[in-house]
Amino acid sequence: MDYRLTTRMEGAQASIIRELLKMAALPGMISFGGGAPDYRGFPKEFVKQVADDAFTNQSKSVLGYGISEGYPPFVESLKKHLQDKEKLDFAENEVLILSGGQQCADLTAKLFVNEGDTVLVENPSFVGVMNAFRSYGANLKSIPLEEDGVDLTALEDAFKAGPVSLFYMISTFQNPSGITTSGAKRKAVYELAKKYDVIVFEDNPYGELRYEGEWIPAMKTLDTDGRVIYTGSFSKTIAPGMRIGFLVYAKALHTKFKIAKQAVDVHSSTLYQMVCHEMLTKDLYDSHVSAQRAGYYKKMKLMDEAMKACFHPDMTWHRPEGGLFIQTKLPEGMDSLPFVNEAVKRKVITVPGSAFLTNQEDKSNAIRLNFSLPSEEDIEKGVEILGKLSYEILG
Amino acid sequence: MDYRLTTRMEGAQASIIRELLKMAALPGMISFGGGAPDYRGFPKEFVKQVADDAFTNQSKSVLGYGISEGYPPFVESLKKHLQDKEKLDFAENEVLILSGGQQCADLTAKLFVNEGDTVLVENPSFVGVMNAFRSYGANLKSIPLEEDGVDLTALEDAFKAGPVSLFYMISTFQNPSGITTSGAKRKAVYELAKKYDVIVFEDNPYGELRYEGEWIPAMKTLDTDGRVIYTGSFSKTIAPGMRIGFLVYAKALHTKFKIAKQAVDVHSSTLYQMVCHEMLTKDLYDSHVSAQRAGYYKKMKLMDEAMKACFHPDMTWHRPEGGLFIQTKLPEGMDSLPFVNEAVKRKVITVPGSAFLTNQEDKSNAIRLNFSLPSEEDIEKGVEILGKLSYEILG
Repeated sequence: MDYRLTTRMEGAQASIIRELLKMAALPGMISFGGGAPDYRGFPKEFVKQVADDAFTNQSKSVLGYGISEGYPPFVESLKKHLQDKEKLDFAENEVLILSGGQQCADLTAKLFVNEGDTVLVENPSFVGVMNAFRSYGANLKSIPLEEDGVDLTALEDAFKAGPVSLFYMISTFQNPSGITTSGAKRKAVYELAKKYDVIVFEDNPYGELRYEGEWIPAMKTLDTDGRVIYTGSFSKTIAPGMRIGFLVYAKALHTKFKIAKQAVDVHSSTLYQMVCHEMLTKDLYDSHVSAQRAGYYKKMKLMDEAMKACFHPDMTWHRPEGGLFIQTKLPEGMDSLPFVNEAVKRKVITVPGSAFLTNQEDKSNAIRLNFSLPSEEDIEKGVEILGKLSYEILG
Repeated sequence: MDYRLTTRMEGAQASIIRELLKMAALPGMISFGGGAPDYRGFPKEFVKQVADDAFTNQSKSVLGYGISEGYPPFVESLKKHLQDKEKLDFAENEVLILSGGQQCADLTAKLFVNEGDTVLVENPSFVGVMNAFRSYGANLKSIPLEEDGVDLTALEDAFKAGPVSLFYMISTFQNPSGITTSGAKRKAVYELAKKYDVIVFEDNPYGELRYEGEWIPAMKTLDTDGRVIYTGSFSKTIAPGMRIGFLVYAKALHTKFKIAKQAVDVHSSTLYQMVCHEMLTKDLYDSHVSAQRAGYYKKMKLMDEAMKACFHPDMTWHRPEGGLFIQTKLPEGMDSLPFVNEAVKRKVITVPGSAFLTNQEDKSNAIRLNFSLPSEEDIEKGVEILGKLSYEILG
């Protein structure tokens, strides 16, 4: 039969990255393609202990229907954690536990994005969240990123051209660019959002993975009128397979978000909420993240040094202060896709910058490299292969 | 600030049942309110073993990002199971593993329900799935259920009045009515759907919990042109906290459903997919479900007998051949809400029939009683309390 699919799904696209990741599983491949934390650091013994205890002594809670708002002890320990670490304020705000950062974007779009609405995103921006907006029929427009965050003039112009439902930003160690929005720009963006009455969706999955430089408070800490919806996740700090993320928003929004959660999948994994809760309350979380940070810092420096040694001098990049990626660029005007495709043939997976554009048909000279997942040996080997390729292409 | 929420979320409602379930956790409450399997039967030792092995030997797969289509070995074992048990055909169809039956409804709505579209449901119907449709701005219309399934004349009239995007039905042991659509009516509904070019969303979470009578093949087995989207779940047969359900649909739909899954939450729990896979392939599933069935059958008969002994003769019900519910009715024209509210005061939770109507403000004389979760003692005690109340109200 001829299916009449919804208009909202017409614009929905497959994630290039997830298709690339299937290739990464092939033997002999070196993958700089993913955005995953290092599986070698998963706290598997701890997770096993929590699971053992949960299935033995709490099987009714862990295997029965859970509460849509989140596992109650975890809701409390998470609030405390976010208060202590991120200075978020739970006098005015609520938290909702969801199935990973992707679901946080899904529900935010469900509540705030009518079909055909304009949603602004940074250029470049994370393809997964753009796909969530696309799947609600959003009209995505992008605002150029500068070294300290979004171009404020372009942002104000887009707000003026309005109406804009929502502005999506990754404030710290942006994916894919690695850029951190400065404190001054966070304030300026918030003031503009206020002036033009726009919701800001502030995504912060990498904030805890800072290796250098100073912590900058989330825009959510500046929010006096409830227009910032903040989202975080344990996918990068503990393990992505748990699918545990969360939203923080003004209390007035809690009922509608809760209804949306009930409607999409009833509740998130109680087992993995218990794991997060136990890590937070047994003070294991900080030491775990600290160990992860040290390992990633080492790998990041290794990749940066290897790139300096191997890459053609016309290729450029900024060494990031944190996060999981180095974004490198071919000279202005070049398209990175042929480079990426040739690299795959040589068994190195990278992600072309075009994957992070509102229109994936557009060209980009950027290439995203992940350093958290590959081994140190693969970082050196892979960068050498890419370096050779850069000389072949750039002469 | 004043939030401008999406039009689709205006019609979204909180689940009365999930609010009731919070009361069920209060001490001394007897709950006939839920729709959950008996936690006493959760295969917790087996789940613990699978988890132990997974976290010890497969931590990279189980805690890393999973595949959106589902854990590959489980995709295969599930297909085999559905082929053997339900006679579903995977030459023409594909399966997609999702986070429980609720997400199956969410994605089906995402693909097929534009805002304002008419969606037909049985009257009464399952509130969770109706809420999923409401959260996409569907206009729900209901078709009366007769003892052997939906009223065909009313269904055809509604199809004619069209356009109708989708007809939602629970073919076996319907929730809340317990009604099973006969083989003849399945065929007739399918032919009507074909004639008026409507998609049928066939939900079958209870089909394996048959205590009496003969198995009737799913409408999906009659589907020659790919218009039936079939959904099932392991929530009632293994454990709802796993959040493992699945869709079966024509191959042509696989790419779009996969994209939708990526956009909502990337992938479902790999751990619990491993649990389902191990149960299916180690031939534990059949014996487990068989034991559950025996226990529920006993409880169902106990509740039925207790109702016969205690309820006012003007209260009516059909003893169901399977599933988790007995639906009882006050005399025609009466409203069950005062009965349900008074029962709560006497510490017995039931669900008013109005919860299962397209307009929850409408009155219903029905009351849904769950027999799988309460203990045998609570079944006898609770029915006695309800029986007394029925005599007080009906004289």
